[in-house]
Amino acid sequence: MAKLKWALIGGGEGSQIGPAHRLGALADGHFDLVAGALDHRPEAGRAFAQSLGIAPDRAYGDWRELLAAEQGRPDRPDLVTVATPNATHYEITRALLSAGFHVLCEKPMTVTVDEGEDLLRLSRSTGRLCAVNYCYSAYPMVRQARAMVRAGELGRIRLVVTNFSHGHHGDATDAENPRVRWRYDPAQAGVSGQFADCGIHALHMASFICDDEVERLSADFASTIPSRQLEDDAMVNFRLSRGTVGRLWTSSVAIGRQHGFDIQIFGETGGLRWASEQPNQLIHTPVGGRTQIMEKGEAGLCDEARRLSRVAIAHPEGFPLAVANIYCELADAIRGTPRDGLPGAESGLRSIAAVHAAVASARQGGAWVEARPPMLR
Amino acid sequence: MAKLKWALIGGGEGSQIGPAHRLGALADGHFDLVAGALDHRPEAGRAFAQSLGIAPDRAYGDWRELLAAEQGRPDRPDLVTVATPNATHYEITRALLSAGFHVLCEKPMTVTVDEGEDLLRLSRSTGRLCAVNYCYSAYPMVRQARAMVRAGELGRIRLVVTNFSHGHHGDATDAENPRVRWRYDPAQAGVSGQFADCGIHALHMASFICDDEVERLSADFASTIPSRQLEDDAMVNFRLSRGTVGRLWTSSVAIGRQHGFDIQIFGETGGLRWASEQPNQLIHTPVGGRTQIMEKGEAGLCDEARRLSRVAIAHPEGFPLAVANIYCELADAIRGTPRDGLPGAESGLRSIAAVHAAVASARQGGAWVEARPPMLR
Amino acid sequence: MAKLKWALIGGGEGSQIGPAHRLGALADGHFDLVAGALDHRPEAGRAFAQSLGIAPDRAYGDWRELLAAEQGRPDRPDLVTVATPNATHYEITRALLSAGFHVLCEKPMTVTVDEGEDLLRLSRSTGRLCAVNYCYSAYPMVRQARAMVRAGELGRIRLVVTNFSHGHHGDATDAENPRVRWRYDPAQAGVSGQFADCGIHALHMASFICDDEVERLSADFASTIPSRQLEDDAMVNFRLSRGTVGRLWTSSVAIGRQHGFDIQIFGETGGLRWASEQPNQLIHTPVGGRTQIMEKGEAGLCDEARRLSRVAIAHPEGFPLAVANIYCELADAIRGTPRDGLPGAESGLRSIAAVHAAVASARQGGAWVEARPPMLR
Amino acid sequence: MAKLKWALIGGGEGSQIGPAHRLGALADGHFDLVAGALDHRPEAGRAFAQSLGIAPDRAYGDWRELLAAEQGRPDRPDLVTVATPNATHYEITRALLSAGFHVLCEKPMTVTVDEGEDLLRLSRSTGRLCAVNYCYSAYPMVRQARAMVRAGELGRIRLVVTNFSHGHHGDATDAENPRVRWRYDPAQAGVSGQFADCGIHALHMASFICDDEVERLSADFASTIPSRQLEDDAMVNFRLSRGTVGRLWTSSVAIGRQHGFDIQIFGETGGLRWASEQPNQLIHTPVGGRTQIMEKGEAGLCDEARRLSRVAIAHPEGFPLAVANIYCELADAIRGTPRDGLPGAESGLRSIAAVHAAVASARQGGAWVEARPPMLR
Repeated sequence: MAKLKWALIGGGEGSQIGPAHRLGALADGHFDLVAGALDHRPEAGRAFAQSLGIAPDRAYGDWRELLAAEQGRPDRPDLVTVATPNATHYEITRALLSAGFHVLCEKPMTVTVDEGEDLLRLSRSTGRLCAVNYCYSAYPMVRQARAMVRAGELGRIRLVVTNFSHGHHGDATDAENPRVRWRYDPAQAGVSGQFADCGIHALHMASFICDDEVERLSADFASTIPSRQLEDDAMVNFRLSRGTVGRLWTSSVAIGRQHGFDIQIFGETGGLRWASEQPNQLIHTPVGGRTQIMEKGEAGLCDEARRLSRVAIAHPEGFPLAVANIYCELADAIRGTPRDGLPGAESGLRSIAAVHAAVASARQGGAWVEARPPMLR
Repeated sequence: MAKLKWALIGGGEGSQIGPAHRLGALADGHFDLVAGALDHRPEAGRAFAQSLGIAPDRAYGDWRELLAAEQGRPDRPDLVTVATPNATHYEITRALLSAGFHVLCEKPMTVTVDEGEDLLRLSRSTGRLCAVNYCYSAYPMVRQARAMVRAGELGRIRLVVTNFSHGHHGDATDAENPRVRWRYDPAQAGVSGQFADCGIHALHMASFICDDEVERLSADFASTIPSRQLEDDAMVNFRLSRGTVGRLWTSSVAIGRQHGFDIQIFGETGGLRWASEQPNQLIHTPVGGRTQIMEKGEAGLCDEARRLSRVAIAHPEGFPLAVANIYCELADAIRGTPRDGLPGAESGLRSIAAVHAAVASARQGGAWVEARPPMLR
Repeated sequence: MAKLKWALIGGGEGSQIGPAHRLGALADGHFDLVAGALDHRPEAGRAFAQSLGIAPDRAYGDWRELLAAEQGRPDRPDLVTVATPNATHYEITRALLSAGFHVLCEKPMTVTVDEGEDLLRLSRSTGRLCAVNYCYSAYPMVRQARAMVRAGELGRIRLVVTNFSHGHHGDATDAENPRVRWRYDPAQAGVSGQFADCGIHALHMASFICDDEVERLSADFASTIPSRQLEDDAMVNFRLSRGTVGRLWTSSVAIGRQHGFDIQIFGETGGLRWASEQPNQLIHTPVGGRTQIMEKGEAGLCDEARRLSRVAIAHPEGFPLAVANIYCELADAIRGTPRDGLPGAESGLRSIAAVHAAVASARQGGAWVEARPPMLR
Repeated sequence: MAKLKWALIGGGEGSQIGPAHRLGALADGHFDLVAGALDHRPEAGRAFAQSLGIAPDRAYGDWRELLAAEQGRPDRPDLVTVATPNATHYEITRALLSAGFHVLCEKPMTVTVDEGEDLLRLSRSTGRLCAVNYCYSAYPMVRQARAMVRAGELGRIRLVVTNFSHGHHGDATDAENPRVRWRYDPAQAGVSGQFADCGIHALHMASFICDDEVERLSADFASTIPSRQLEDDAMVNFRLSRGTVGRLWTSSVAIGRQHGFDIQIFGETGGLRWASEQPNQLIHTPVGGRTQIMEKGEAGLCDEARRLSRVAIAHPEGFPLAVANIYCELADAIRGTPRDGLPGAESGLRSIAAVHAAVASARQGGAWVEARPPMLR
């Protein structure tokens, strides 16, 4: 099977997410990195691209340059990844989709709900993929959880509780560090800080596993470091369309939590628990029974959990391979076997709408507000 | 040192909390059980009392009988514990205090705020102890956490996050079981179900460790089993008087959680974590540093942590000995060495006020409401 | 039911194990402490005894004094606990048994095999209890493990692996501290250091759960702190009489392990795991199935696990209550309901024989040697 | 930087280790898979190779065919991986080294000590790499452990304790399954079963972290499933050349352990703990201090730990990326920057010698025997 061709925009040297995308695209042999515009500093971007093996004539200084040059090539990329600063996602993704490229966009897909609706429409009208990198949803045991919910193994889902809390922005003496500061500055980050950064992963996960959508929510936001304009801690209560009660806590000042992303799902006939720092296990308790540890790779898991795992039971697979699973599903989709687990523009749009709803609720003292974008009500 | 004399009301055969009180009072040799009215069925109560070694003439059929007979004895009890159904706490405790007894009352201390204010006034005017059994606060490592907060080791406390969630009422087929049912029936349980049952332990703990009081709150209540009138799941956001942000989740339908009571405290210079299923450890992360495991019994702990522990490091001490710690502090207080950690009528009153506030907020769609009782504003 | 009368020898102020015995005897209301010879310094012992509520005329300066005075009293103790230095256990226990007292002796029961055989004979001939404080075996979930093995739920037991390793003697700068030093000095500790101190708990546990006896063993001893004459680290391979393979590691220089006593049992149809720092859980994996967490207090446990637990599921019970369970079974036996789980002189003897066998094996470069005492071959 | 060219022998469809090698070689963009002889069934091997994107003329039916065709090509592979059945490693690796290829060989490198010595000599004389896939040693936090030992942060190492135990061969009803059976059959597996399969990973790890070599050992082997000729459970005591005491338990019948590979290192001034199922943490306890959790990606780790990690702190990296780290170090070595952590023929040889020593010791009832190969004494 011939490899697919892949281009990367953003993810330059020193980027946090860039290495995960490169590894994710390459690891399973589905993609070759053929073009890139990796840095907002043109020379640095071109040099870094060549150090990664990209041919000099496809090592671009700028995403517009890449688009202009690549869209006409016979060997043009099958997929372009957008891993640039948040505020630029919309413009770049829009241009790529319009030029007929499949796109994988980092989250958040856009800044405004209108932009999100625009991309969803564009993705539908062009028939191009507009995937969003909700990579945690591609862990095998997350897929297993969803499969169990779908199969009714937990009965009606009463309650979903999820946290995404870390303490990496908890040091007030580091708060003016530009790598931290921008996230809490409305001029750069938009209307929300921590909720838009981490909370939407958790909200997407809740919807994803419950196979349902957030309908309304009530939020409490706090800037626990007073110099911050945007929230560094948030609690969001929500309801899914089928009545499931949701609870979501997210924080960046939870000193001692490293990557505290976890989720618990409670139904009529059982409960599940999964945590991103131990992603290869899924904890299951049937009502009236004992808690059991399900392991990635054990016999009897769902097709997706099997397909998205590479090595035997109890050999841990981690975050970069969850990203690689997104690329596996992109490769499948591009080759004509779309997978319904791949998060697309609709997921991206719902997240943005939820961010705006949470901001509105917090401003109104926790009032319950509609969380769905107008286009999807 | 002569033993103190102790009487027990309630806690009859089959009671859940009775054994913990008996063990708690006896374990450290501070008290002798000299009188009891253990059951609402007079004969059963008398027989059970005698099987526990209580003299026949002090094995009563009823609390009024006990009060009438014991208040005039020269060897009257130094302490009376009230472990009866919730709705009776107020009347019995009131009568005991009025007769000059020290009292340990099970939580919730009263059903209404007015009753709570009355007991606080009475305790103050009589100079009698009116302790409330917030026993989790007597674990050594909880005391250590409070001592660290008080000493400023975490800086200003930004955030406290606590959960008390279990799944033992998650089986809908068991919901009509009378042992479960009454908790969700307003006629028997009052205005609140799970929050009044477990949530107030967590709320007390947050105040206790942060050494501060809840000022206002916003609640979301849900009856995830539809036949229930009162909530079986609740989320409460709150603010302490010095600005600390609080988050509290409590549930009785979290299938797979056994006794999921835990608390995290996040300050400017560090974070702490404690969980009731692993009560002998306190997890500490200084800002910018590594997570460390503090052990009950290690060198350098605070006086209270040392005083309330009996065996060497890494020999676990559990729930019954936390209750025993409450009795140790009662013995100390009765013998003239009061300890400021012992939860009293003020704590009991604040909890009731918070319950009523949470109910009011939930009814108003999460509006923020005053959480303090009128008497303590 | 009237309380039993209890006397304590040793366990004076500052003793590590004394508090656990006092709490163990008192907690469940089975015993009253009526007499004591608590310290090798007569005055200190008498004073401490009275501070614990013992009458002045029964607060003795010496165990011989206690024996002489108590044996003729009509209200003589029903049980005497021996918690003195190891080298004195034999003489005191012998005298007590001979005078017709039931005895609970701290481990190791004796120093030599001959002494152990003598006590076993004496216990048999007098019909007096000579229990040994292998208290870990009285945890509810340890009893559950034994019940499962006995019921054949694991099939034939192939393998048992146990560790009892801590790091509390790992600081060479503290090695001359007398509280540490004596354990590695043959003049005070006998032939073995760490194995005799902690290892025999693990060896007893292996036999206890497997319901079988150690037949032969091969040992590797090391003094990792060179100034020590006796071992501070040992590995013992052994075989039980029905062919089960055994592995036992014990260490006192395992810095970072607090109280690392755990055991794993592997049979034809499943495996079990238990750890003393998390004593309320038993981990069970049926062959070909998922790992399950069994909880103290869950439905369906064996009678012993139910009888030896006091509070509901997920309320932890710890080390002092395991000791209390030994006292519960002593009270049962004294009152005429003996329990077969209570460790007696035979267990004490087998341990001593194993210590001597391990020493002999280690001296012979790991040769396999007989582990049973002559009397029990 | 141009990619290196890579060929794979073995690792065909359904192979357990094949996917890890492919991912390991591709993930970081260092290698392109250009040739392969993937299966002992020539047609299956050629077809599978082409499905992986190998050109038809470089998809071979047999390793000899590959060697013959590739050795003369101008674009011949820079590295060949040998992932064939154990008994064939020696012959193939010998031929490849002789033809001037760099080789990565699966463990065990050879069956006999003589063969191992031959490969070490050949690797030295040809100057070709003969790496062995002790991939666990390439986890970042294992490198951190070694760096701490080397820097003297633990003082002299007194003790190393390691286990590699699983239960995947514990089902006697599955013992005749050919995928299981061959491992315990001397005709196919050689002199040792579980110790040669998993134990040598643990033994290598002990040497690797302690930066020292095994000098002598004493072993106890057991076939707990009686139909097995080779051991399925083994305990090996050993000594490193600088006096460190070693303990190693390995089992394949430990039902409930999934991939129980862990190691503890105890020195004069601290202890370390690492476990392969939680590979991103290293637990450190300084003597007299608290246990601390070190995280992959935290500030201040050693160069190797930083170099061999791809994503931020608390994003787990797992087993396939440990294999990828071996390939990173191979790429570095081929490009002229050799890393001293890469396990080579000397490590492979020492393992084989230890296997034969353990077999000899077990046959002699645990006698202590020399563990070093003649060539390295």
